[in-house]
Amino acid sequence: MTMFTPLFPILERNALNAVALVPGANFLRIFGRDFHQMERPLVVIVPAKGKPVAIVPKLEMASFEPLGFPGAVFPWRDEDGYMGAFEKAAAALPLNDGARVGVEGQRMRVFDYQALQKVFPNAQFIDTHQAISTVRLCKTPDEIARLRIAIERSEAALEKTLSQVRIGMTEKQVEAILLSELFAAGCDGLSFEPIVAAGDNSAQPHAVARADYKIKAGDALLFDFGGRYQHFSADITRTFFVGHVSDEDRAFYNTVLAANERGRAVSRAGIAAEDVDDATLKVLETSQFAPFIRHKTGHGLGLDVHEAPQIMRGNTQQLEPGMVYTIEPGLYDEGKVGVRIEDNVVVTEIGHDCLTSFPRELRIIG
Amino acid sequence: MTMFTPLFPILERNALNAVALVPGANFLRIFGRDFHQMERPLVVIVPAKGKPVAIVPKLEMASFEPLGFPGAVFPWRDEDGYMGAFEKAAAALPLNDGARVGVEGQRMRVFDYQALQKVFPNAQFIDTHQAISTVRLCKTPDEIARLRIAIERSEAALEKTLSQVRIGMTEKQVEAILLSELFAAGCDGLSFEPIVAAGDNSAQPHAVARADYKIKAGDALLFDFGGRYQHFSADITRTFFVGHVSDEDRAFYNTVLAANERGRAVSRAGIAAEDVDDATLKVLETSQFAPFIRHKTGHGLGLDVHEAPQIMRGNTQQLEPGMVYTIEPGLYDEGKVGVRIEDNVVVTEIGHDCLTSFPRELRIIG
Repeated sequence: MTMFTPLFPILERNALNAVALVPGANFLRIFGRDFHQMERPLVVIVPAKGKPVAIVPKLEMASFEPLGFPGAVFPWRDEDGYMGAFEKAAAALPLNDGARVGVEGQRMRVFDYQALQKVFPNAQFIDTHQAISTVRLCKTPDEIARLRIAIERSEAALEKTLSQVRIGMTEKQVEAILLSELFAAGCDGLSFEPIVAAGDNSAQPHAVARADYKIKAGDALLFDFGGRYQHFSADITRTFFVGHVSDEDRAFYNTVLAANERGRAVSRAGIAAEDVDDATLKVLETSQFAPFIRHKTGHGLGLDVHEAPQIMRGNTQQLEPGMVYTIEPGLYDEGKVGVRIEDNVVVTEIGHDCLTSFPRELRIIG
Repeated sequence: MTMFTPLFPILERNALNAVALVPGANFLRIFGRDFHQMERPLVVIVPAKGKPVAIVPKLEMASFEPLGFPGAVFPWRDEDGYMGAFEKAAAALPLNDGARVGVEGQRMRVFDYQALQKVFPNAQFIDTHQAISTVRLCKTPDEIARLRIAIERSEAALEKTLSQVRIGMTEKQVEAILLSELFAAGCDGLSFEPIVAAGDNSAQPHAVARADYKIKAGDALLFDFGGRYQHFSADITRTFFVGHVSDEDRAFYNTVLAANERGRAVSRAGIAAEDVDDATLKVLETSQFAPFIRHKTGHGLGLDVHEAPQIMRGNTQQLEPGMVYTIEPGLYDEGKVGVRIEDNVVVTEIGHDCLTSFPRELRIIG
C-alpha cells in the first residue's frame, strides 16, 4: 500500500499504462500537499507496473522530499530548463509504442503536455480527468470535518456582513466587508472570488461586483461566496431583499426556496446525481417562473470548488456515502432580479447531512 | 483599432496564422475582464486575417456580451457539451493545412487543446505563451496606480500584523492575522497564499506555515505575501528576527540587504534583465554566504504574479519603461535560517521607481 494504491483500479478500469499527475486537487489528495502551478513544470508519472518518476523544479525539492516519493526524482534548475529532466524521466520509465497515458485534462497545461509528447513520442495521452478525480469522490470524516469548519466560519462572516450593509453602499463596498469578515472569522483562503450582486446584477449567475451602483430599497442582494479551511472550500449562496420586497419577488424567491428544499429532501445514497437535479428543476419548471431557469442544480465540492458529482440531468452517477455536493437552484429575470439559494450536503448511509445551516427564509436586510 | 490590435504584431513576428486565447491574465488585459477557468471551456480564436470566433459557455453569455466581441460567438450548454460549439467555430474560421496557431502553453489546459486539435486536425499548435504575454509587458500608468494601491495596503497590513506577533504563537496563527489584516486594509484578493515561516522553516523558499511550531526568541520570521487590488498583485518579502538576533544572522541578513540594494540601484531602462540578476547575485556570490544561494533575483509582476521579465541570467530582454518586476535576493542555510528581502520596482525613462517602501533595515520584533 502506497500513496498510489487508489490509482491502480483507475488505471485498470481505463486500460491505462500510466497516469501523469500535475499539482492540483488530485495531487493534494494523493500526496497530502500541493505545489503552486506556475511557470515551472512539476509532473509525476505513475505506471501500472514499475516505479514512478517525478520531474521537479530544484527550487521545490526541499518541499518535495518530505513526501517520501517512492521512485526516481529528476530535479531541474531554472538555468538549465526542464526538458533535460523530462528526457531523463522518459529514459527511466520506458513506455511501449501506443502506451495509454491518462492525464488530467482540466488541470494539466499545454506546456507540460507538449513536453510529455516530446519525450514519449509514441504514447497516447488521454484526458481521464474525471476518472483520476474519483480518488477524491468520497470524502473522509476528517475531510468533512474540515469542510464543516470552512462552512461555519463562512456563515458567521455572512451574518457579520449583513449587520453592516446599508442602503446606498456599493456592491464593491459590501464585497470588501465580506472578504474582511471571512478572514477575521478564521478562514485561511477564499473558495473563489465572491459574488456580491444587487438589483439587476443579481440576475447574472456569475456577476461581478460593481463600484458604481448603489444598493437601493427593493433590491435583491445575492451573496455567492465561501471561505476555505485547510484546503476545503465552502460554497454558499443566499439572496436577501433590501428594505422591502414586492409580492412578485416574494413569490419568485419562495419558488427557488421550494426547489432548494426539494433538492435537499431527495438527497440520499443509491439514487443518481441526475435524480437530484430532476427533482429540483421540476419544482421550477412547473412554476410560473419556468422561463427564468438558467442552470443545473449543483456540483460536487471538495478540494476543487467544482468537481464530481455534477448534479445534472444525464449524469447517472450513483450517489454514495461521503459524496459532497451543492444544491443551488436559481431563477434569473434578466435586467430585473435573480435569486439563488445554495446549500452544501454530504450523502450518508441513511440520507444526507446538510452542512450549511444559514437560515433560508426570505429575509429583509439593511 | 480593436481590442486585438496589440496581437497583430505578435502574430506577424511569430509567423502565426491565428492565436487561441483562454481566460487568464492575457484575456483580462485584452478584454478588460476575466472569466473563471473551470470545467467549461471558453476559447477565443483571433486570426491574422478575417473575423475572430469565440466558444463560450451559455452560462457566461450575459457576461461575455458586454465585451463587444467583434466576431461570431458560439455558445454551448452544459446538457449539449462543448464539442458542437468547437465544430461550428472551426467551420466559421477555416484554417489552411499546416496553419500555425499560437496558444498560451502555461495557461491553456489539455481539454481545450485536445478540442482544438480535433476540430482543426491539420493545424499546428505552438506554445507562444511568452510572445502572447508581451501584450502586458509594459504597464500603463493606470495599472501602476492600481499596483501601488495593492502595495500600500499590503504594507499597512504587514505593519499591523507585526504589532500582534508574540513569542509562542504558531506560524499558522500569524498567517491568520496577516490574512485578516490584508482584507481589513482593503485588498480585494490575495496575490498568492502567503508564506509565514519562522526558524528553520524560513530556510525553505516556498515554506508552508506550520500549526505545530511555536515561534521562539532568536528565530527569523519571514513573510512573503501580497494583497491584490483590481487584479494587480503586490509581492513583498520581509524577514524579521524575534526578540534578538545573533551576530552571524545579522551578517547573513545584511548580505541579502546589500544584494537587494544593488539590484534596485542598477535597475533602469536599456540594460538587460540578466544584468539586474547578475549585479544582485554577485553581491551574494562574493560574500562568505555564497553556498546558501538558491534562486535567481526576481520575476515580472502584474496581472500574473509570475510573468515576464524574468530577472535571471540568460534573459537578454531589454528593460523598458513600464516594466515591473521583483528584486528578491535570498540566502537559505537549510535547517537553520533563511532571509529574503523583496521589493517591486517599475522601470522609468530615467531609472526606476521602487513601489514598495516598507523599511528594510534589520528589525527585531515580538
